[in-house]
Amino acid sequence: MQLSEWVSGFDNRSPTHPFAWPLSIFHPPSSILYAPHVRWNKITIVGVGLLGGSLGLTIKRRRLADKVVGYVRRAASVAECEHVGAVDLATRDLCLAVKDADLIILCTPLTQMQPLVKQMLLAVKRGAIVTDVGSVKASVVKELETLVAKAGAHFIGSHPMAGAEKTGVSAARADLFVNSVCVTTPTKKSNQMAARKVEKFWQSVGARTLRLDAIAHDVLVSRSSHLPHVVAATLAGYVLKSEHPKAQAALCANGFRDTTRVASGSPEMWRDIAMANRRNLSSALTAFIADLKKVQRALANADVRTVTKFLETAKQRRDRWRGSATSPSPE
Amino acid sequence: MQLSEWVSGFDNRSPTHPFAWPLSIFHPPSSILYAPHVRWNKITIVGVGLLGGSLGLTIKRRRLADKVVGYVRRAASVAECEHVGAVDLATRDLCLAVKDADLIILCTPLTQMQPLVKQMLLAVKRGAIVTDVGSVKASVVKELETLVAKAGAHFIGSHPMAGAEKTGVSAARADLFVNSVCVTTPTKKSNQMAARKVEKFWQSVGARTLRLDAIAHDVLVSRSSHLPHVVAATLAGYVLKSEHPKAQAALCANGFRDTTRVASGSPEMWRDIAMANRRNLSSALTAFIADLKKVQRALANADVRTVTKFLETAKQRRDRWRGSATSPSPE
Repeated sequence: MQLSEWVSGFDNRSPTHPFAWPLSIFHPPSSILYAPHVRWNKITIVGVGLLGGSLGLTIKRRRLADKVVGYVRRAASVAECEHVGAVDLATRDLCLAVKDADLIILCTPLTQMQPLVKQMLLAVKRGAIVTDVGSVKASVVKELETLVAKAGAHFIGSHPMAGAEKTGVSAARADLFVNSVCVTTPTKKSNQMAARKVEKFWQSVGARTLRLDAIAHDVLVSRSSHLPHVVAATLAGYVLKSEHPKAQAALCANGFRDTTRVASGSPEMWRDIAMANRRNLSSALTAFIADLKKVQRALANADVRTVTKFLETAKQRRDRWRGSATSPSPE
Repeated sequence: MQLSEWVSGFDNRSPTHPFAWPLSIFHPPSSILYAPHVRWNKITIVGVGLLGGSLGLTIKRRRLADKVVGYVRRAASVAECEHVGAVDLATRDLCLAVKDADLIILCTPLTQMQPLVKQMLLAVKRGAIVTDVGSVKASVVKELETLVAKAGAHFIGSHPMAGAEKTGVSAARADLFVNSVCVTTPTKKSNQMAARKVEKFWQSVGARTLRLDAIAHDVLVSRSSHLPHVVAATLAGYVLKSEHPKAQAALCANGFRDTTRVASGSPEMWRDIAMANRRNLSSALTAFIADLKKVQRALANADVRTVTKFLETAKQRRDRWRGSATSPSPE
């Protein structure tokens, strides 16, 4: 599949912008942090953790909706959400939470999305828009598009590429989405107005939106996000295992800290991601292991030239990417 | 080999300190940022890049020496070093640089150390102390201990575990070593007074020192530092290769950024490290690849339980390490 088949809505208005390399595929140009927004009547956040909580904080701070309601599973979360100020109302009653909402955002781990949508279906308003923050899109879109259509509502898949290794609503930040990339994955069946409204929503919380085919999205993120997670977790698990001498942990410095940071993320969320995208992730692992073995072979052969080329190429590619990317936090 | 054979100079004065887990093996307790210092007459820094420049800035700011001289290779570096203020005098004359110095710190990539020491040997003062900042110790100690002894001077190996992906004296920072760990690797032949003075020096720039056997050090850092570097570089090289669609780079977010950060480090420095520690690094790669394959197998078998356990263990181990570690910069 070619990129041109994947990406719709090219925007070349700012070819000279510093973010010139991938800019052409984004709306809007990255110099606009917050897009002018549509005001929503009621937004419901289903699952108020790091992502849901951060969305709630942003929506409230930027007055994007008259009312923000959060659905939570645990009684303790109700008080916690209200304490953080992430929502106007937190409730364990799913149908009450989604009733009359114009926009419902699923912010739970992936496996909980379908059962929750089934439960809420009778309470969803006709014409409402349902979206999500799941890191895998093909399975989510397949499961939810038809289901949500049964309620006369519209499902548009989203993947805001923002997060942190911290978990829970207490780690929520109103600026989490600023300068992040949010992929949306409308299908041929999607209501175009709903797709545009979802894009506007992500732009209004500071993200740059990018439309991709859900299947293509899953291949790309298996490399850029899911593989790094598995690699970081394997590295942390291996280096810090108890069989190693006590001094091993003391010799883990900032390089190790950053290389493994994402391994401190939510195991529940990442289990769902790894399982939902396991075929693509496994392919990425195969290619990655083959590359590691090439480096190992060069080391075994004391092949300085290959080792040098390997390190130079990695630096060049990463520095080029860094030069073209924007990020909410400095390196 | 057991840890007790590796680590000398246990210090249990602060068993209740937050850094309690590996603290017992450090001098001094981490609450003391800067140790009281010996004042040196002249310190020479051989190679004034990120590490050498940061040392120069600290030495000057904390008045640890009457004079700090830097040896540089390129003419342009002389002006750059003086502009940054990293040394009192920068020169391309190695013998002039080391003449009368009490302490000579080798801050070049590993392969340059032996030839430079050979060149400077006639100019080194009897009784002077020579140390280094090399990330691999066994080969360095083996090469330099006897050589430096020929000048009636003392070589003590050091590995300050501080750095950044940025290179050159312009990236130097006076606080680079604060709260870092610095391993020293004196041998049975080492002059004990020289070994203690080198430890005092590192403590006076803010580091906590840890004595280890050079061979044991190399095994430990092959896992905690050299493996993460190879992994990060392989990941950056693989994900960002030009064969992937253009949108691939756009879908690299903060997780990718941090997991690959060290891959932007100096290829020259890391080539030398990888080559000098290639046997240990290759062993670490073998174990790491085996662990990756276990995860891949669990994914192939849709084995949710194993995938969950893998992610939970990695998080637990890393969070435990983070809880016990101190770091100069927040996560």
